[in-house]
Amino acid sequence: MTGIDDLPIRDELRGKSPYGAPQLDVPVRLNTNENPYPLPEPLVRRIGERVTEAARELNRYPDRDAVELRTELARYLSRTGGHTVTKEQVWAANGSNEVIQQLLQTFGGPDRTALGFEPSYSMHGLISRGTGTGWISGPRADDFTLDVEAAKAAIAAHRPDVLFICSPNNPTGTAVEADTVLALYEAAQAAAPGPAGALVVLDEAYGEFSHRPSLLPLIEGRPNLVVSRTMSKAFGAAGLRLGYLAADPAVVDAVQLVRLPYHLSSVTQATALAALEHTDTLLKYVEQLKTERDRLVTELRTIGCEVTPSDANFVQFGRFEDSHAAWQAILDQGVLVRDNGVPGWLRVTAGTPAENDAFLDAVRAVLKESKR
Amino acid sequence: MTGIDDLPIRDELRGKSPYGAPQLDVPVRLNTNENPYPLPEPLVRRIGERVTEAARELNRYPDRDAVELRTELARYLSRTGGHTVTKEQVWAANGSNEVIQQLLQTFGGPDRTALGFEPSYSMHGLISRGTGTGWISGPRADDFTLDVEAAKAAIAAHRPDVLFICSPNNPTGTAVEADTVLALYEAAQAAAPGPAGALVVLDEAYGEFSHRPSLLPLIEGRPNLVVSRTMSKAFGAAGLRLGYLAADPAVVDAVQLVRLPYHLSSVTQATALAALEHTDTLLKYVEQLKTERDRLVTELRTIGCEVTPSDANFVQFGRFEDSHAAWQAILDQGVLVRDNGVPGWLRVTAGTPAENDAFLDAVRAVLKESKR
Repeated sequence: MTGIDDLPIRDELRGKSPYGAPQLDVPVRLNTNENPYPLPEPLVRRIGERVTEAARELNRYPDRDAVELRTELARYLSRTGGHTVTKEQVWAANGSNEVIQQLLQTFGGPDRTALGFEPSYSMHGLISRGTGTGWISGPRADDFTLDVEAAKAAIAAHRPDVLFICSPNNPTGTAVEADTVLALYEAAQAAAPGPAGALVVLDEAYGEFSHRPSLLPLIEGRPNLVVSRTMSKAFGAAGLRLGYLAADPAVVDAVQLVRLPYHLSSVTQATALAALEHTDTLLKYVEQLKTERDRLVTELRTIGCEVTPSDANFVQFGRFEDSHAAWQAILDQGVLVRDNGVPGWLRVTAGTPAENDAFLDAVRAVLKESKR
Repeated sequence: MTGIDDLPIRDELRGKSPYGAPQLDVPVRLNTNENPYPLPEPLVRRIGERVTEAARELNRYPDRDAVELRTELARYLSRTGGHTVTKEQVWAANGSNEVIQQLLQTFGGPDRTALGFEPSYSMHGLISRGTGTGWISGPRADDFTLDVEAAKAAIAAHRPDVLFICSPNNPTGTAVEADTVLALYEAAQAAAPGPAGALVVLDEAYGEFSHRPSLLPLIEGRPNLVVSRTMSKAFGAAGLRLGYLAADPAVVDAVQLVRLPYHLSSVTQATALAALEHTDTLLKYVEQLKTERDRLVTELRTIGCEVTPSDANFVQFGRFEDSHAAWQAILDQGVLVRDNGVPGWLRVTAGTPAENDAFLDAVRAVLKESKR
């Protein structure tokens, strides 16, 4: 039988495994930062209507430029992001992963490098590698915040072409202040290998769950700053795969040089437009999740866990001498959390109140057992 | 105002324009090889049903491995392709463009090269460049067939890591015989830079429209041979963006090393599954289009055009001293065809009988005018 390594694959892929959280059939799944609330039934029906309408023209290619969708995403950002943006400043793709891939194909790639502050969203590094971009792991402080001086030093030393700042940061939940983003933006421009500067990607996938306002206004006057977003979390639509960015219109023009033509299907565009019609309802779920997230932080501390302050829809908790063993012990209680490979720490997604109760009970049981 | 060239984009993107056919509002659009028949209403309703069902779990990530969809695609290929394949041999992505991109990320990329025989589907070269893969333009004979000896010589000279064979070929409509594919496969293995050989991608996007059977059976015992397909044309679903491949299971494992996790949305999977339920109806439209394609060939010849024999749902016709002027003259008659940049030739998609009549009338008018 032929194996992967018998094929003429690229050398750097040999021995690698596909990325992805284990998908286990467990009563309580709090491992992938999904929104636990199914879409409300009126929205489900509206999706059915809009997709049915789109299906009547499915023999035709979709709107290559997704103009209606980008218009509605711009309207949403303008309403909620503290800054008015136009459709010319917005671009959408199949998940923020594809947004990031298009950015790296345009601004990274062979003979270029990208830097992110780890632990962070591991796809930043994986997509860098997938696009031939060199990946540099920058530092975080022990409490997982960004130490501005250390971060600036890493930028000055490595002179990346692309800089990733994830806020709120996955998997730690840590938010980054505007002043820090500005300092690192300037540092990246000053250190950039070329005269046009460096691209800075501010990944706000979890932005709607933050205690602080979006940093979207920072794009004003900064053509090399991109804010990336997703409908997977706040819009409860992980299954939709709809990511987007806001930036200077020139960035939107630039990614169109590498985007696959007609990358965004008619059914994806129709579904996203339906969800955007129901923004207000969906944002009420976000408020509930923020409350539950804060409760998880409080109760985990009461139980005796260390908790990293969280601005996201998940909480990093610890510390465990053997975090994988703790992950397994919690799983044995019927609750699936995530081991992101951060030594001593695990990550739990804020679920429904009942799911969170089940999780807290599981952690209590595990801690009790470990103290015997 | 900031322009693209003020940004730190890759040097090779400077001065480039996004790929894509002009989208003009014209009564008869026969320029992008779309299927002119809207999906039948029962299928439209079924898509609405299946997507509504999927939307009830849209807060969850989609099946990352698209197992049900790959199972049904394997069943379709086994029924129609002359060869039994399993889901382990099938992979799907957002359009065959993304399939090709994943293959090039795995088997091409920096310091590797891909070769195709031009004129052919221009995305082969564009996606090669987008993935950092060097692109080599191989030769075709004057009649747009593949000259086996010339093709083998190009392979021996350039030793590509990836070889593209498009059959039926876009934009010429030319089919390639099994013997030719086998000869070029062997030549590519013999010339390959590495011990694991070279990947050969047989692009059968228009396979269902051919006078000849699919070359799918050739994958048997040839782990470096991939057949790529799409639901855009035969399934009348260009708006769906569903491409797929069939190959050795090891190839399917390999592309999973580079695929973006959860690349295929729940709504895309649900829509594709609905369309596959209606395969028999959709294949009847294919038969009608083949008849119309053959009529276009015959009538264009009667009018006095040269026509390249076509196995696809489009026809290459000429010759024009100035093919762009001819394109414009036909457009002035209200019919949009495609100028693919093949000197002397234009391409027309087989539309409905009425659209094809309008096209033939337009060509007659243009030829009459040019003879005055």
